[in-house]
Amino acid sequence: MSSSTSPQLAVHRLDMAHPGDLSALQALLDHGVLAADEIVAIIGKTEGNGGVNDFTRGYFTQTLFNLLGDRLGRSPQQLQAEIPCILSGGTEGVLSPHYLVFARQAAAADAPAGPALAIGRALSADTPAQDIGRWSHVQAVAQAVRAAMADAGIDRAQDVAFVQVKCPCVTSARAQSAAAAGQPVRSADPNRSMAYARAAGAFGVALALGQIADDDRLEAALLEDFALFCPQASISSGVEVSANEVVVLGHSATWRGPLRMACEPMEDAVDLGAVVRACTRLGLQAHPQLPASDLSRVAGVLVKCEPDRRGRVRGKRHTMLDDTDINAQRHVRAALGGVVAGVLGTGQIFVSGGAEHQGPDGGGLIAIIASIA
Amino acid sequence: MSSSTSPQLAVHRLDMAHPGDLSALQALLDHGVLAADEIVAIIGKTEGNGGVNDFTRGYFTQTLFNLLGDRLGRSPQQLQAEIPCILSGGTEGVLSPHYLVFARQAAAADAPAGPALAIGRALSADTPAQDIGRWSHVQAVAQAVRAAMADAGIDRAQDVAFVQVKCPCVTSARAQSAAAAGQPVRSADPNRSMAYARAAGAFGVALALGQIADDDRLEAALLEDFALFCPQASISSGVEVSANEVVVLGHSATWRGPLRMACEPMEDAVDLGAVVRACTRLGLQAHPQLPASDLSRVAGVLVKCEPDRRGRVRGKRHTMLDDTDINAQRHVRAALGGVVAGVLGTGQIFVSGGAEHQGPDGGGLIAIIASIA
Amino acid sequence: MSSSTSPQLAVHRLDMAHPGDLSALQALLDHGVLAADEIVAIIGKTEGNGGVNDFTRGYFTQTLFNLLGDRLGRSPQQLQAEIPCILSGGTEGVLSPHYLVFARQAAAADAPAGPALAIGRALSADTPAQDIGRWSHVQAVAQAVRAAMADAGIDRAQDVAFVQVKCPCVTSARAQSAAAAGQPVRSADPNRSMAYARAAGAFGVALALGQIADDDRLEAALLEDFALFCPQASISSGVEVSANEVVVLGHSATWRGPLRMACEPMEDAVDLGAVVRACTRLGLQAHPQLPASDLSRVAGVLVKCEPDRRGRVRGKRHTMLDDTDINAQRHVRAALGGVVAGVLGTGQIFVSGGAEHQGPDGGGLIAIIASIA
Amino acid sequence: MSSSTSPQLAVHRLDMAHPGDLSALQALLDHGVLAADEIVAIIGKTEGNGGVNDFTRGYFTQTLFNLLGDRLGRSPQQLQAEIPCILSGGTEGVLSPHYLVFARQAAAADAPAGPALAIGRALSADTPAQDIGRWSHVQAVAQAVRAAMADAGIDRAQDVAFVQVKCPCVTSARAQSAAAAGQPVRSADPNRSMAYARAAGAFGVALALGQIADDDRLEAALLEDFALFCPQASISSGVEVSANEVVVLGHSATWRGPLRMACEPMEDAVDLGAVVRACTRLGLQAHPQLPASDLSRVAGVLVKCEPDRRGRVRGKRHTMLDDTDINAQRHVRAALGGVVAGVLGTGQIFVSGGAEHQGPDGGGLIAIIASIA
Repeated sequence: MSSSTSPQLAVHRLDMAHPGDLSALQALLDHGVLAADEIVAIIGKTEGNGGVNDFTRGYFTQTLFNLLGDRLGRSPQQLQAEIPCILSGGTEGVLSPHYLVFARQAAAADAPAGPALAIGRALSADTPAQDIGRWSHVQAVAQAVRAAMADAGIDRAQDVAFVQVKCPCVTSARAQSAAAAGQPVRSADPNRSMAYARAAGAFGVALALGQIADDDRLEAALLEDFALFCPQASISSGVEVSANEVVVLGHSATWRGPLRMACEPMEDAVDLGAVVRACTRLGLQAHPQLPASDLSRVAGVLVKCEPDRRGRVRGKRHTMLDDTDINAQRHVRAALGGVVAGVLGTGQIFVSGGAEHQGPDGGGLIAIIASIA
Repeated sequence: MSSSTSPQLAVHRLDMAHPGDLSALQALLDHGVLAADEIVAIIGKTEGNGGVNDFTRGYFTQTLFNLLGDRLGRSPQQLQAEIPCILSGGTEGVLSPHYLVFARQAAAADAPAGPALAIGRALSADTPAQDIGRWSHVQAVAQAVRAAMADAGIDRAQDVAFVQVKCPCVTSARAQSAAAAGQPVRSADPNRSMAYARAAGAFGVALALGQIADDDRLEAALLEDFALFCPQASISSGVEVSANEVVVLGHSATWRGPLRMACEPMEDAVDLGAVVRACTRLGLQAHPQLPASDLSRVAGVLVKCEPDRRGRVRGKRHTMLDDTDINAQRHVRAALGGVVAGVLGTGQIFVSGGAEHQGPDGGGLIAIIASIA
Repeated sequence: MSSSTSPQLAVHRLDMAHPGDLSALQALLDHGVLAADEIVAIIGKTEGNGGVNDFTRGYFTQTLFNLLGDRLGRSPQQLQAEIPCILSGGTEGVLSPHYLVFARQAAAADAPAGPALAIGRALSADTPAQDIGRWSHVQAVAQAVRAAMADAGIDRAQDVAFVQVKCPCVTSARAQSAAAAGQPVRSADPNRSMAYARAAGAFGVALALGQIADDDRLEAALLEDFALFCPQASISSGVEVSANEVVVLGHSATWRGPLRMACEPMEDAVDLGAVVRACTRLGLQAHPQLPASDLSRVAGVLVKCEPDRRGRVRGKRHTMLDDTDINAQRHVRAALGGVVAGVLGTGQIFVSGGAEHQGPDGGGLIAIIASIA
Repeated sequence: MSSSTSPQLAVHRLDMAHPGDLSALQALLDHGVLAADEIVAIIGKTEGNGGVNDFTRGYFTQTLFNLLGDRLGRSPQQLQAEIPCILSGGTEGVLSPHYLVFARQAAAADAPAGPALAIGRALSADTPAQDIGRWSHVQAVAQAVRAAMADAGIDRAQDVAFVQVKCPCVTSARAQSAAAAGQPVRSADPNRSMAYARAAGAFGVALALGQIADDDRLEAALLEDFALFCPQASISSGVEVSANEVVVLGHSATWRGPLRMACEPMEDAVDLGAVVRACTRLGLQAHPQLPASDLSRVAGVLVKCEPDRRGRVRGKRHTMLDDTDINAQRHVRAALGGVVAGVLGTGQIFVSGGAEHQGPDGGGLIAIIASIA
């Protein structure tokens, strides 16, 4: 097979001036850096509150698919059913609104040989409100993860570096509808329901990667047994989707190019060591902060984190969970943004709260995509 | 002079379960670790919102002086006029509510020789609402700083490591009263008035340390010319004080004991290098995080920081200043808490927003107190 | 029995400048309007957020009992165990921080004859974290209500106009302690636990007033069967109490004086008719707002309300329950403050969210105390 | 001129499930109730925070003009430059997200004769950041108001019932750009700049209606002399517009149909009398709340209000201006929503904070559109 037919992953990290500003992507398309039909997925952070009533995600999504629809001459609705657009709201503290565009292109003749970073994607069927946080939800996610691995050309679970899933959640309105239909939702509390959705997503990834059995008695472990976690899973949840969107990233010998990815579990919210370890695995030198030359090699940073539900970090009381004024996820995103930006030297970090079962209890994970030097 | 008459500074870093919980200090007094009349100052972080309507500071203060009044057989009001109690509200993210008790004790026979960390304090006269943020306010703070230096036995400005000032501010009610008396306040906006108070405090420290001239034309530079800053000043502002409370920390040959202090300006909100430099100056090894043995030597960490008013950190847009839901100071405290806690490995950090003129524009300072190894 | 020995209830509605400001009460004591030992209970609204981390209630309470302790030569702790001080945080919108001081005095010779408004109080034993929201909690409240009726000299349930209860709740710390002791709390979510506490309080009042049976199977109805409610119950919940504090208000032939009370259930958050009906029962003319002469007769206004959990008010979607930025109780207090202040013409209204089982589902109650013309 | 050529105003009040949900309008278009080219203006309330970072307005706007663009075969950008879409974010308390669609249609043969409610619109040129809150801004608004009156066929200022203006404001980014170009903005504080924009809008309406002179010395009165106000002006401000959008509503003999409008100034935030007076002028009976039959005649309710900047409502302290957790405008919208919904019996009310110079100081205005009985 000639090298020209090998796929190569391109990752573009782009600024936005507001959630409806896709001008940076538009410019890439205009200048031919990227073709619209090469886009596999989008992962981004918008500047909302990250909660049920965060409409910055829907606004960005609508703008994105209008743009792609125009370029491809297809309906935005169709495209939205094909291309995962996974957004996390909330750019607290030093975090900066941005998005990562993942594109599958033909490898350049001089592209470094593989194994290189590969991408695959899949969308599940719609998950109805009453199924969210149930075992059927876990199974639906797992099936989509397997489909995304196949799409990436990754056979072995051990080659999967990172799985991003966006799950639907339950709003007050959806809870009412389900209840009226005699099918009560697992939790009518919107924030709790988002947590169940994320938990089901994490279990779904673990199931697909062979880390747990397909046993519906495990449904009881969701949001209960936090010793169970999947260190490759990054899950978000939002009102704007009704199906589970999955993006798998991993290394594959059939792909070429300079990109590599390292993912490390974080033991707690101040686990600076994990951040440095992820850098080191990619040859990035943090002494204590990346020099500009190394920062320029970084293509994307993704973090999941969690306000420790036991109320303490390293033995000291935190106040995130008892704060009526600021949602706990907003607190922890701001803090983790600081921990990670201190090392990386940039606020363009995808930090997403709600890390239930996606890392050690009270911690989470950090994943970095970088070019080899 | 025999060693038994040399003073020695003790710093106790204490937990609190809520803003009215002084049980940790009570235990120290009960067990004779500390005598009530040895207490020179308190600096603490309470779990309020840090704004005009943060009453956790007043609650803690009332509880503290009731306790000390009981022990000393004096009125709480008298004690409050003597002992600076400088609190900053807001324990966002991983920050943990705590307070530092600074006590002046007779040096133990085996205490390390000086120069050692010394403390002094002073209170200005009351600053009326209409004077806040004016040059007369600057002069009042400067006079109190000089008095606090004398109290500490520090003659030279260069030996001053850190000056903490708590300034009064203008509430809606105080602004109304002043206006009714024909004396308008500099700003009727509560948050803006707190900023003016902090600016005047920083200029006051700079004036006392000989960094600027006593020229009232400089009043126009407050909150305008951010190239002017005092790298030793840490200022907070709150409704619960009517006078300026000053605490000076510095090294003095007449004091003994193991404590030393290092203060470093921070260039911006992600200046991890400054944190590590402050550690290194005290012999604390951050690779990348302090080991437990080094953390146990740390007696206090004080940080001032600021959401960059130009809207960017390292060239990337932040959203702190445009957020109607979360006050910008709460954002930046959470982020800096992450940056510093990543290195130190603890959330017991005094991080205070509102760093106008207290470090480089968009940055601030970090000060660490530690025992010599 | 001579009229001089009949009791008479005095209700003073007092301003506060901040949660630690009891100067208005101090002035009444100084001027002999009131003696400290005549105070039976305090009900007030402080300007916190009304949530778990609202410390304005603790601050006010500490200040109050310090003041009364000074006047009575007794320990504040003892007094706090005797005198219910029931505070609700949150003065959203036009609501104004204030407190009602209820005093039992000897009737003046010319006091109007009874039946007049009477007051009684009681405190339960401490409710441990694991009992909150359980049937044992309901029983403890009921027992305290009966004790308070006896204290007021009210024999018949039908003469009870209004029962205010402040219940303890579960913080993260208390939940951890209980779990560590093998006794899990009913909900570890702080807001949910406050809701359970309020529900148990309402059931406790209903039990005491003979409206439900003492059947522990009803425990399952808490926060589930909202058709069950007690139209005389007003319950709040907070971290600052560990026992249930009960105040009963009702009409008794053994009391004299001009005060009367009317309580009306509110069907929903915009039930203006209920407000006007309560006024009318007391001879207050709302056309559409009380004239000044009638407003001057009003001694206290107490409202309980609830963001409709079905997400709609009069068929139109509200957004209170899906808002990540503002707690739903803060939303609804602000709205009800507007509804009631429109009729009364004042923001000195005790409006407390969290009306679970204290009125029709999605509604609540309004109670007014006024002098007869 | 035959009656068939007379214009008639239709006002449709429509629900939305989220800020991107225009399905109710789509249904009206699909069923031929309305033609897309008959739409003159949209006024709506979306469920954001109403501040600088409220993107629900931009999201709704994008969705609206995509829809209309599809129907009319024109570009959304062109339509947006023609059709005012004036949104106010923030549905606090009982307020319900909704929008009013104003359409100019040919009068039905049996339409009631005029004078009837008429509508006109205009857009100014773009107002650059440095002009916002200056006299040139006032003049630009006035010119647009005159154009809108002409568009409505209203000659006399006295026939104007209500003028809605949406002004652009200054974000951090825009302030930076202007400063870099040597043209400083009037205030770099985002919330302050929104206030200046609203003030300029109100003065612009007053200028157009002959209530003030075209004297640029009056620029100093903006946000200073609150005795100056325009009782017909309703102004909002947002990041999503760069020009001033004006909609004039008034009565004209050349229009037919059943709609009439009444507008009353509100003296303060609890001026229930003004609400009832506006109802009465339209023959709506509030005893104390509108009966269902009268509510069905109401086509739209628009309110402007303001947290009293002197810190008191009817002599009692409010806490809206000193709250660091909840923006003052959110507080007051929630309260006014309650005051007005109590009378009207619905939460579908356009309540917009920021009433500077749009009614008596500390108050605002209420306007109701209703069909004659």
